[in-house]
Amino acid sequence: MCVAYKPNTAFYEAYGIKGWQSLEKTINYLNKSYPDIFTIADAKRGDIGNTSTMYAKAFFEDLAFDSVTVAPYMGKDSVEPFLAFENKHTIMLALTSNEGAFDFQTKSIDEKELYKVVLETSKKWKNSENLMYVVGATKTEYFKEIRKIVPNSFLLVPGVGAQGGNLQDVCKYGMSDNVGLLINSSRGIIYASKEKDFAKKAALKAMELQVQMQEILKA
Amino acid sequence: MCVAYKPNTAFYEAYGIKGWQSLEKTINYLNKSYPDIFTIADAKRGDIGNTSTMYAKAFFEDLAFDSVTVAPYMGKDSVEPFLAFENKHTIMLALTSNEGAFDFQTKSIDEKELYKVVLETSKKWKNSENLMYVVGATKTEYFKEIRKIVPNSFLLVPGVGAQGGNLQDVCKYGMSDNVGLLINSSRGIIYASKEKDFAKKAALKAMELQVQMQEILKA
Repeated sequence: MCVAYKPNTAFYEAYGIKGWQSLEKTINYLNKSYPDIFTIADAKRGDIGNTSTMYAKAFFEDLAFDSVTVAPYMGKDSVEPFLAFENKHTIMLALTSNEGAFDFQTKSIDEKELYKVVLETSKKWKNSENLMYVVGATKTEYFKEIRKIVPNSFLLVPGVGAQGGNLQDVCKYGMSDNVGLLINSSRGIIYASKEKDFAKKAALKAMELQVQMQEILKA
Repeated sequence: MCVAYKPNTAFYEAYGIKGWQSLEKTINYLNKSYPDIFTIADAKRGDIGNTSTMYAKAFFEDLAFDSVTVAPYMGKDSVEPFLAFENKHTIMLALTSNEGAFDFQTKSIDEKELYKVVLETSKKWKNSENLMYVVGATKTEYFKEIRKIVPNSFLLVPGVGAQGGNLQDVCKYGMSDNVGLLINSSRGIIYASKEKDFAKKAALKAMELQVQMQEILKA
């Protein structure tokens, strides 16, 4: 089991330059002091070719994140520029944890749901071995189908915690013999307390989740 | 006819804090000196509720843009937080100008193309009167169908210039009796010259396009 750091860039951007400085300080500190922590810029970017390259440079080079989340709507030439970076990972939205996932992602395209078409199509893209996928913990009933399409891909699974995803089910249906899962709780941890003890309470919540995962892995 | 400023945020983010400072300086200067210029943060954001609210705050409040571009993949609860801001506009990707648009956007969902489902669905969202849509200038053959679904919405039309979209066709098929178009050339203008005369050449290219539009409007 390893630990990952997945800041949502929105929370830094909302504070403008100070926010950006804070993000830079945090990632630099982590990369220096905890080089083994896998870092994910949860930015959900995606734009046409040359612009995606600029985003990739921002997160992979300037901020030196290990990975970044991207949106698939604009297709191949909006994602491949991210995949071109060696030793970096691109985590694409497939089936997200929110209610709005049912607006388009689970709708059928030629008798196949959009998220499945997204998964299948992306496997054909250049350097697709650098791709991982976002699959929400609140959608465990879909995991089996998803694993049929991408048995060897890492899945980033948000939605455990505040959004109510079930850790046990996520592990049961999401783990594969070949590859693990990146399970993510954000609000459940960072909003554990709004008092001065927020850091302690957040650490406690994170440890709680870690212990739960450890137990499931043992069983 | 009015002028809009549509910076692609990637090009600032790629320069880290300095880039963000530059974006802030530019938008502040514009808002102060040219308050009539419509400003668009071309950021293509989209995330679950509370995160989208943070992005909206970053662009609508902190940077005081008039509008921001968003991606539809995560559905209603990822876009509505943007729509909640009064006197601000949200420009959602519908049919983009790039090749990758054919990967998913033009695929059929229950016998209807995804971009049409996106357009129709979004009309039912709260405060949808604040919505505009991105439709690529390279896809003029789709404009007629799009205008049937959203006759009263502003369209932001990128892809004239470097991407080869035809201005005449865009106006012919995209304009409606009720509402206009926001036609956008980025690379065609900003990369007009890589020499010291870049500002002059860019201004010239912008004026060229403006004159072309004026002529079409007259005719």
